[in-house]
Amino acid sequence: MRALDLILAKRDGAALDDEAIEFFVAGLCAGEIPDYQATALLMAVHFRGLDLDECVALTRAIVRSGRVLDFADLGPVVDKHSTGGVGDTVSLIAAPLAAAAGVIVPMISGRALGHTGGTLDKLAAIPGLRVDLDPARFRRAVATAGLAIVEAGPELAPGDRVLYRLRDASGTVPDRSLITASILGKKLCVTPRGLAMDVKVGGGTFLRERAAAEALAERMGAVARRFGLAVRFVLSAMDEPLSPAIGNAIEVEHAIRVLRGEAGGALRDLSLAIAGEMIALAGLAGDAEAGRLRAEEMLRGGHGVERFAHFVAAQGGDATIVEHLERLPRAAARRSVRAARSGSVTALEARVLGEGAARLGCGRGTIESTVDPAAGMLLLVGCGDEVRAGDELATLFAASEAALDEASSLVGAAIRIGDAPPPPRAASPILAAFSG
Amino acid sequence: MRALDLILAKRDGAALDDEAIEFFVAGLCAGEIPDYQATALLMAVHFRGLDLDECVALTRAIVRSGRVLDFADLGPVVDKHSTGGVGDTVSLIAAPLAAAAGVIVPMISGRALGHTGGTLDKLAAIPGLRVDLDPARFRRAVATAGLAIVEAGPELAPGDRVLYRLRDASGTVPDRSLITASILGKKLCVTPRGLAMDVKVGGGTFLRERAAAEALAERMGAVARRFGLAVRFVLSAMDEPLSPAIGNAIEVEHAIRVLRGEAGGALRDLSLAIAGEMIALAGLAGDAEAGRLRAEEMLRGGHGVERFAHFVAAQGGDATIVEHLERLPRAAARRSVRAARSGSVTALEARVLGEGAARLGCGRGTIESTVDPAAGMLLLVGCGDEVRAGDELATLFAASEAALDEASSLVGAAIRIGDAPPPPRAASPILAAFSG
Repeated sequence: MRALDLILAKRDGAALDDEAIEFFVAGLCAGEIPDYQATALLMAVHFRGLDLDECVALTRAIVRSGRVLDFADLGPVVDKHSTGGVGDTVSLIAAPLAAAAGVIVPMISGRALGHTGGTLDKLAAIPGLRVDLDPARFRRAVATAGLAIVEAGPELAPGDRVLYRLRDASGTVPDRSLITASILGKKLCVTPRGLAMDVKVGGGTFLRERAAAEALAERMGAVARRFGLAVRFVLSAMDEPLSPAIGNAIEVEHAIRVLRGEAGGALRDLSLAIAGEMIALAGLAGDAEAGRLRAEEMLRGGHGVERFAHFVAAQGGDATIVEHLERLPRAAARRSVRAARSGSVTALEARVLGEGAARLGCGRGTIESTVDPAAGMLLLVGCGDEVRAGDELATLFAASEAALDEASSLVGAAIRIGDAPPPPRAASPILAAFSG
Repeated sequence: MRALDLILAKRDGAALDDEAIEFFVAGLCAGEIPDYQATALLMAVHFRGLDLDECVALTRAIVRSGRVLDFADLGPVVDKHSTGGVGDTVSLIAAPLAAAAGVIVPMISGRALGHTGGTLDKLAAIPGLRVDLDPARFRRAVATAGLAIVEAGPELAPGDRVLYRLRDASGTVPDRSLITASILGKKLCVTPRGLAMDVKVGGGTFLRERAAAEALAERMGAVARRFGLAVRFVLSAMDEPLSPAIGNAIEVEHAIRVLRGEAGGALRDLSLAIAGEMIALAGLAGDAEAGRLRAEEMLRGGHGVERFAHFVAAQGGDATIVEHLERLPRAAARRSVRAARSGSVTALEARVLGEGAARLGCGRGTIESTVDPAAGMLLLVGCGDEVRAGDELATLFAASEAALDEASSLVGAAIRIGDAPPPPRAASPILAAFSG
């Protein structure tokens, strides 16, 4: 078998069998299949797709590329995942709340993809915090804090790590089947009983239309069933950023503020809903609504922020940041984006803001690019706000003036100002919730 | 500008402007764009295509990636090219014949692509012969022999060399626009007045249907016109191999036999037609038929084989191989493929035989693969021949028994034996000839 034959077969519309897919993933991990053949195959998959059997095979190959860890002796294992948003740091809020309610959350997460942030990049902003835990340390961290968030390291789903980085750099992020296999391949490594899946819909994500989000959920549900995994899907709106903070350190700071009860809004609402789904999937509440109420109790009682501090400490991080937000990395350069005219803010385009954040240093151009933990932005206005020409709309943070130059016009363009206020919108970002 | 943005744009069906295409080719040559992004873009191009302006821009970017050489002071410069066949060594016959008639042929050629052979790989089988000539040596070789065949080196069309190898390894060989830009980008570096273009049609090439060959010719003609280059297209059949010899050293040997007047058939017919087109494009004959007659005179008078020897010597090769074919590399292992049944040979499938040759060591699996000069096969039967079970159909040559194992069943399957002889076919492989 040769990688080239797989490329040619997929390019011409054939289905790849289990053996071919196993060969591809194993060969990539072993360095026997070069990156430039992998990206050609990924782009062919983008155009030709994978059928359900191929998707199951890819998921299985990713699981088999590393170790499988069992945490069931610690309690009911439930994980969560998001398809990726902007200003969206639900994981850092929902996971500690669920853990505080007794859920075991051994989360294997990803890095920034395209214009959306990545939980691991956010965590890397916390001084000392390690996400590259070996299985023994991963287990100890989960046993200590009830949750841990790690990267798919050399021992855990290495196939996904390799694929994920290549997809990011080759424009093959949005394929439904690649997404499904990437997410489930990682998640299945910790043998959870359930998964709460936050599927983003709207202009700020690759799933512009609700139908596309439902199609992804259907594919994920079908693959998950083949592995005996219960999935609850929450469809949530992602037209504007979920919170005013976009970046890495700045999102960690904002998540802590939500956990401390100092910030609310859409990010808080969605985080409570996801935590509620996790608690229900764990069997610790009768249904998602009961779970949500339990999560809210945890938040109000300060148990979420306490768990967050334990989790940071268990992964070697400086837990004092929870009290001392000023100990998070700060950018060398900052700039205000100001209103060019007076009027009403009619839209905050999440996608363009995400692109702006990437230019500030939060995203990757190639595999080799590094992410700047201190880069990001803080939005100072919301949809419907009245502004006057010259008002500050957002503050940008970056390592250099050049990066600020690159991003500022994008950010300015993303914050739309019109004559009339926009029509009123739903307060909650949640569009639907259903079982897979 | 980022390579990723180009990938995303092409993936989603947008046209790339001149600047973007120049950025891509220059970035690849400078090593600033990684291979894995290039192959993703190439696969996106495979699915989305390039329009005429993009194709012209890519051609120009390839020309601009290196030096442009002018040979016009030596005589009328005309080049030839083939889209790639099996057992197809027309270049090694037509170029010396045209040169013998007074045409100046500074040919920049390619390596094996997919299941088809490459002129440079064939020449590499000649002891001592160098194809990596710098521009000064290239010019001296052309001045001495009237022809030279070299690779697109670091100074000449380096952009094509990089692209060509990536296409080969990424399953993006057959795209019409990539082919056009690759061929014309190389050819335009020697500023020829004319180009004789052998376009293969049939099961043994990527152009299965005549309509596809005509579409490629139309695209090439349109791009060539933008550069003021006259092109004559010869469409030729490639269902079965053009000659019984398939490989590298073995094809060199066969070409010499044709030039010595010891072998004929389809390869000789097509070579004379292409040489005739070259002579006519050079203005040394009134039309292609007059040119063909002139080429035939050159062959009969022994001037072609004499030119071949001069050409080999001018590129540092051992010209005594023209007299001593046994000095070409010989394979360590050989095996006979025998008829499984009695009957008539109904087909010799060029594509499958080409795949078999690649398995023997004549083709590339990845960029890093090396080609075995001694590997190949000799077909001992032709279409319509009667055979008995156990008769030898072909002899295979390779470096190892393992390679023979891999290829022999393919070769056996490619030589079809039926009860009845096949319907009679045209003796000449030439389907049509027209101006671009």
